[in-house]
Amino acid sequence: MLELHKVFNPRSIAFFGASNNPTTMGTGELAFLIMAGFKGKIYPVHPSEKKVLGIDAYKSVSELPEVPDLAVMVLPTSIVPPILDECGRAGISAAIVVSGGFKEIGGEGEKLEREIEKIARKHGITLIGPNCMGVGHFEIGLNTTYSPYDQKPGGVTIISQSGTYASHVFGYTKQAGIGLSHSVSVGNSAVVDISDCLEYFADEPSTKAIALYVEGINDGEKFMRAAKKATSKKAVVAYYVGGSKAGARAGLSHTGALAGDDAIYDGVFRETGIIRAYDIEELLTWSWAFSNQPLPAGPRVCILSHSGGPAASIADRAERDGLEVPIFSAELQKKLRELVPMTAAVSNPVDLTFYMDVASVCEEIPRILCSSGEIDALVIYLIFGSFLLSKTKKALGKRLDFPADSVIPDITGYLSKFVEIPHDFGIPVIASSFWSKEDEGIELLCENGIPVFNAPERAVDAVSAMWRVSAAAKEG
Amino acid sequence: MLELHKVFNPRSIAFFGASNNPTTMGTGELAFLIMAGFKGKIYPVHPSEKKVLGIDAYKSVSELPEVPDLAVMVLPTSIVPPILDECGRAGISAAIVVSGGFKEIGGEGEKLEREIEKIARKHGITLIGPNCMGVGHFEIGLNTTYSPYDQKPGGVTIISQSGTYASHVFGYTKQAGIGLSHSVSVGNSAVVDISDCLEYFADEPSTKAIALYVEGINDGEKFMRAAKKATSKKAVVAYYVGGSKAGARAGLSHTGALAGDDAIYDGVFRETGIIRAYDIEELLTWSWAFSNQPLPAGPRVCILSHSGGPAASIADRAERDGLEVPIFSAELQKKLRELVPMTAAVSNPVDLTFYMDVASVCEEIPRILCSSGEIDALVIYLIFGSFLLSKTKKALGKRLDFPADSVIPDITGYLSKFVEIPHDFGIPVIASSFWSKEDEGIELLCENGIPVFNAPERAVDAVSAMWRVSAAAKEG
Repeated sequence: MLELHKVFNPRSIAFFGASNNPTTMGTGELAFLIMAGFKGKIYPVHPSEKKVLGIDAYKSVSELPEVPDLAVMVLPTSIVPPILDECGRAGISAAIVVSGGFKEIGGEGEKLEREIEKIARKHGITLIGPNCMGVGHFEIGLNTTYSPYDQKPGGVTIISQSGTYASHVFGYTKQAGIGLSHSVSVGNSAVVDISDCLEYFADEPSTKAIALYVEGINDGEKFMRAAKKATSKKAVVAYYVGGSKAGARAGLSHTGALAGDDAIYDGVFRETGIIRAYDIEELLTWSWAFSNQPLPAGPRVCILSHSGGPAASIADRAERDGLEVPIFSAELQKKLRELVPMTAAVSNPVDLTFYMDVASVCEEIPRILCSSGEIDALVIYLIFGSFLLSKTKKALGKRLDFPADSVIPDITGYLSKFVEIPHDFGIPVIASSFWSKEDEGIELLCENGIPVFNAPERAVDAVSAMWRVSAAAKEG
Repeated sequence: MLELHKVFNPRSIAFFGASNNPTTMGTGELAFLIMAGFKGKIYPVHPSEKKVLGIDAYKSVSELPEVPDLAVMVLPTSIVPPILDECGRAGISAAIVVSGGFKEIGGEGEKLEREIEKIARKHGITLIGPNCMGVGHFEIGLNTTYSPYDQKPGGVTIISQSGTYASHVFGYTKQAGIGLSHSVSVGNSAVVDISDCLEYFADEPSTKAIALYVEGINDGEKFMRAAKKATSKKAVVAYYVGGSKAGARAGLSHTGALAGDDAIYDGVFRETGIIRAYDIEELLTWSWAFSNQPLPAGPRVCILSHSGGPAASIADRAERDGLEVPIFSAELQKKLRELVPMTAAVSNPVDLTFYMDVASVCEEIPRILCSSGEIDALVIYLIFGSFLLSKTKKALGKRLDFPADSVIPDITGYLSKFVEIPHDFGIPVIASSFWSKEDEGIELLCENGIPVFNAPERAVDAVSAMWRVSAAAKEG
């Protein structure tokens, strides 16, 4: 019986392989666990150091003051089996083996992997790894990976056969504003595999969408069962790289995963209701959209923009993605025309051109569009916050005759109503902007559940993924 | 005779439509011109203000102390024709009309556009616009667009039928590290069109690659001539959105451009040696790679990585992109095996796993690979700088027994040799990392001409684009 709940919610952790040398991976992982603000007990185990990173260390498992919930091992390969056995004998029932040098290198490594699997099964240890990056549960400050997580938690959970995609991508998610709930790198999956994790996160309440990175599935039936359970409760996006010869070869040397024909995997994903992504950015950005937006009820996209270029790009991509960009009814166009400048276009795309009436852009126009009955999704390219004005003010303060503060609108109020639109109308809203979270409007949207992508085409790609899931659900 | 040189290299600018109200577009554009550090003279023209943003203002063209090289107009549509005429009579021979409300809105607007075209031709004014965002030449601090450019200049020049893609994308290029040489938004192209710009930038020496955004080409023969000239001297990447019905319709309402069948444009691009991109990110990132990397002589990609996930992703994408990921010869594998840890893979991908010997990673291994004769391009996912260590040190300084400074390697020396690899071997090197330029290693690479993309698949997509250009040149 797997105890994944314990792995992701430990009250205490025995940490093997950290020292006071900051250049080792073990020290780094312990450092990031401390930096994440983990509130439980941490027991570094070290043969000689009295303290590790300022925390009292213990010479061995037998000296620990209690039986910890979880053991994390970043140890030389050869000593993993005896230490794991010691942990098991001491009653530790959950472990993460970060160390590599097992199945992925073949020969002796395969033998060692069979050995640790046997030890884990003998003691009933729920084991993640080996050859993995560990796990994160960011709400409780748990992060055993070799990458700092220093942003707010969110609704996306990563389940990955690559350590990097469950850890270093924190750099990407932070810049993009994508909040994560959990992260797990399963590595060689000696005991716990992606199917077990799918099954667990199907029921885990803070996980709103699952981002799955796959190099190969060994037990197809088990996967199908877990995937069907997960997709019946939340969206699952999968990125599979084993469908090409080169990708399959790379995966084999990476985690020893047996890849299979692209078409077979396509079939598995379709059959189980998983949506397939073709790169890491699609995987993360689509999962983000799924995690906080309602599904579109149809394929009709409305484009709302401050600019013709992105509007045309979104229109072009929407059609290539299988979506529709309907021409609005005369009635709807008339309503919009009354609100926008002469230079604007209102037939869809709605291109506002240079129009800075925040109340109208953030409230009146989107609400008219969403209540029209003519659209199923809203894709926007807008200039939200006062980034440009603030930047101008900073640079030119003394050159301006009056304080720019007096003319910078307080957009917080307007945007806090704007972020209610998806909930009020059941229509997904995905935004894009070339400015980063330097713009406080963009930060506010991201923090309140409206994804803002760094390119307009990505926004409509996400809507297309959502519509495919929605359409498949309608078909049954 | 067009005077594009004057447009991009003015010694003095008359600026119409800026005031001391920071919320107007005209004031913003003048502000960003000042912020860009323009060294020439600026003459704001304003009917009532004595000073505009601290600069002495003039009531009309006739009061200007000299004939300026360039007039920039951000004026209400109806007064553009008389003011343009006044400029022409005063001898101003280059103008940028930012104002909209012309051909793109039809009817009265079309008439007004014919009028300004006539005025421009009568006086021999080289006119950019109307309905555009102006131009940038960043080496001389010229930026008339409504977006601040505050990064180092580079080798990419943007020619765009969208204002946003020639201005707001500065937010994207800054985050990505893509340096721009020039930027021009042609708007409705009443006088100067993208073909004129292609012709000009073909010979402009600081432009190493051209990123072209197209909604429609009106004079096909002229375009073909200019494009052939440009591609004979440097790479041209084009992003065309008019090939779908929705994209064509959006383009028409945007700049009045007449779009055409996707296949026809594909043919035009192929015939002229232009490489086609399918989104704004491809357009900008590929142009970046073209601007500072040699073309690959063949399709063989070597993948060098610290991590199996990105390595497998790159391998998979390379094959989907029509590239090859050859298995290395036994001899090359043997050489590599002597340098890497037991857990590493050396057959290609070369997956170093956790291996932090900077000298070996930055110098010895890449040089062995590039001199092997077995590869045509190097795509890397590496952990370059000391971002993680610095972050750890900052968070845990007091917890560490000795100063982390002493163990953070000085990577500058190693990386400054690494950036010579493309030049030393004539082999393109494209990197990727999930960390931003917070990591000083990544910043150093970007500043020294090695593009670092934010996702591994993007890096190999760029190599594929480069190989297609290289292969076409071999054939043709």
